[in-house]
Amino acid sequence: MDTTIKDLGEFGLIEKIKTLFGKPQDALGIGDDCAVLPFDKTNLLVTVDTLIENVHFFSNHPLDKLAIKAININISDIVACGGYPKWAFLSLSLNPQTKTSQIDLFLESLQKCFANSNLELLGGNTTKDDKLSINITLIGETDKPILRSSAKENQDVYVTGKIGCAACGFFAIKNNLKESDECLNRFLAPKARLDLIEKIKPYATAMIDISDGLLQDAMHICTSSNIGMDIILENINLCESKYLSDIDKITFGEDYELLFCADKKYRNSLLEIKDVKLIGYTNNSKKLTIYNKGKILTPQKYGFRHF
Amino acid sequence: MDTTIKDLGEFGLIEKIKTLFGKPQDALGIGDDCAVLPFDKTNLLVTVDTLIENVHFFSNHPLDKLAIKAININISDIVACGGYPKWAFLSLSLNPQTKTSQIDLFLESLQKCFANSNLELLGGNTTKDDKLSINITLIGETDKPILRSSAKENQDVYVTGKIGCAACGFFAIKNNLKESDECLNRFLAPKARLDLIEKIKPYATAMIDISDGLLQDAMHICTSSNIGMDIILENINLCESKYLSDIDKITFGEDYELLFCADKKYRNSLLEIKDVKLIGYTNNSKKLTIYNKGKILTPQKYGFRHF
Repeated sequence: MDTTIKDLGEFGLIEKIKTLFGKPQDALGIGDDCAVLPFDKTNLLVTVDTLIENVHFFSNHPLDKLAIKAININISDIVACGGYPKWAFLSLSLNPQTKTSQIDLFLESLQKCFANSNLELLGGNTTKDDKLSINITLIGETDKPILRSSAKENQDVYVTGKIGCAACGFFAIKNNLKESDECLNRFLAPKARLDLIEKIKPYATAMIDISDGLLQDAMHICTSSNIGMDIILENINLCESKYLSDIDKITFGEDYELLFCADKKYRNSLLEIKDVKLIGYTNNSKKLTIYNKGKILTPQKYGFRHF
Repeated sequence: MDTTIKDLGEFGLIEKIKTLFGKPQDALGIGDDCAVLPFDKTNLLVTVDTLIENVHFFSNHPLDKLAIKAININISDIVACGGYPKWAFLSLSLNPQTKTSQIDLFLESLQKCFANSNLELLGGNTTKDDKLSINITLIGETDKPILRSSAKENQDVYVTGKIGCAACGFFAIKNNLKESDECLNRFLAPKARLDLIEKIKPYATAMIDISDGLLQDAMHICTSSNIGMDIILENINLCESKYLSDIDKITFGEDYELLFCADKKYRNSLLEIKDVKLIGYTNNSKKLTIYNKGKILTPQKYGFRHF
C-alpha cells in the first residue's frame, strides 16, 4: 500500500531528500541550522524558514509581533551557527482582501527589526493566496562557523535564558487563558539571542537554537556529533507558569534560546555570563539521558514533529 | 476607508517595501531578477520564487513536471542576470496525506534537474499545510552581472525562442482543449535558457527573463534604464497556436525566454545565434511602443499582475 508523508514523517522526508541529493562539494549542506558557504575571507551562512497562517500561527496573531517572530526565527539560526545576519529575502503570500493598514503594521515592525540588527532587505517576491504565509531566506556571515557536529565527549552543556515560556504562551492563547506578558511575548514575538553570541562564541564547540524542543535539539547535537548527553532537569531555568509540566516545557520548542557545548576549562568564564546555565555533560553513550533529582526520566516525546 | 492589497496591487506593494526598507549599502537589491552580492573574486546572485497550488499551478499538474518548472523559473532569474546557478534551498509545504510515491516523483525529477545544471541542494525546510507550495531560493555566480538598468538608447532589442507557447498551454489545460506537446510542456515544465547564456553574455547590455509577459518585462527594462523602446510585433517568433491572440501571447508570460539589449555593432554576431531574434530598438522616448505592420498597437494590458 502507498504510504503518505504523515507515515514518513518530517525526519523521514528530510533523510529521503538528503540521500537523493547527496552531499555538496564545497559547502556544508543539510543537517545544521544553516548551510555554510566558505569564501576566501569569510563564511556565508544561509537559512530559510516558513510561517503559514493556521499552521504556525493563529489568524489573530498581531502582525507587528508576527514580523518580529518571522525574522527572529531566522536570525536565531544564524546566531546558532556563530554568525551575524546581513541580508534577507522576503516571500510574502497574501490574501488580496488583506487591509493595507495590516500589512503596514507588519512591514513597519519588520523594518524596525532590520534596522536594529543591521540587516538589509535585498529581494523576495509577493503572491496572492487565500491566507498569509511568510518565507524568509536569511544570509549571515561568520569568521568561524559553529556546527552541531563538533561537540566532544566530556564537555559541559549549557543553555541560555528561560525555557518553556513560548510553550506556556502558546497554551494560554490556544485555550484563551490569562498568562504573563513574558510568556505571551515569547510565543508571539520571540527574540534571537544576538546579544549573547559575542560572549559565547569563543567557547562553544557545538551549538543549536531551541526551535523544536530542548530535548530534541540536544538530541540533534548528540546524533550529529556522535556523542551522548546527560541533562539535569533541575538545572534548567524553567518557565514558572503552572499550565504545563516540566516535560512539556522542554519538548515544545520555539524558545529560540541557545544550547551549546564547551570544554570544562571554560566553565568559570561561561557561568559569569548573564543568562547562561550549565545543564548537563556530554559523554560517549550516544544516548540522551534526562535526570530529575537523580532519577532517570523517560519522556513520551522529545520535541515537535512537523507531520 | 481602509484599502486592501488588491487595491494597492503587486507593484504598489513592492514600491511600499522598497521605500520602507531603503537601498542596501554593499549589494544590489530589489528591482532586478536577482540581488547581486559583490565579493572579491565573484558576484553572488540570489533569487527566490514561490509556486502555490491553485494559485500558480493546478492540482493535477504532474509533479515531475512541476519540479522542472519550480527550479527552472529560478534558474531563469540567474541566467537573466548573466550567471550560473550553484546552490539551492527548498522549502516544501505539503499536505500530510500526500502519497509518498507522488513526492518521490517530484524529488527524483528535481534531482535530475540539479544534476543536469551542476546545482547542489544545501538546505531548506519542510512543513505541513493543506496544499502544496514550493519556495526555492537559488544562489548563482557571475563574473559580470547583467542588470535591467544598463540598457542605453539606440540599441537593438532581442528575444530568444518562441513567445506565447506557455500562454497557449495554460489556456488549453484550463479549458480542457487539445494542444501541441510543445505548448503544454512550455507551461507545465519550462526550461530556462541556460544553453544560450554563454553566447549572449558578451553582448547583452541589459537583460530580463520573460516571466510576466514580454511587454511588461520590456517595460521593466525601459523603466530601470530610463529609456524607451519600439517593439515590432511581426518580428517576434510567436507561437502558432490559434487559441490566443498575438497580444495575449506577448502579455501572458511564463515563457522564460530572454529579452535583452545590445549595441548595434554586434547585430551580425547575435543574429548568428540560433533562437535569437531582433524585435526592436531602444530610444530616448521613455515609452514602450508596439508596432504591428507599421501601425501602433495600444494593448489593454502589458502583463500578469499578482493581485
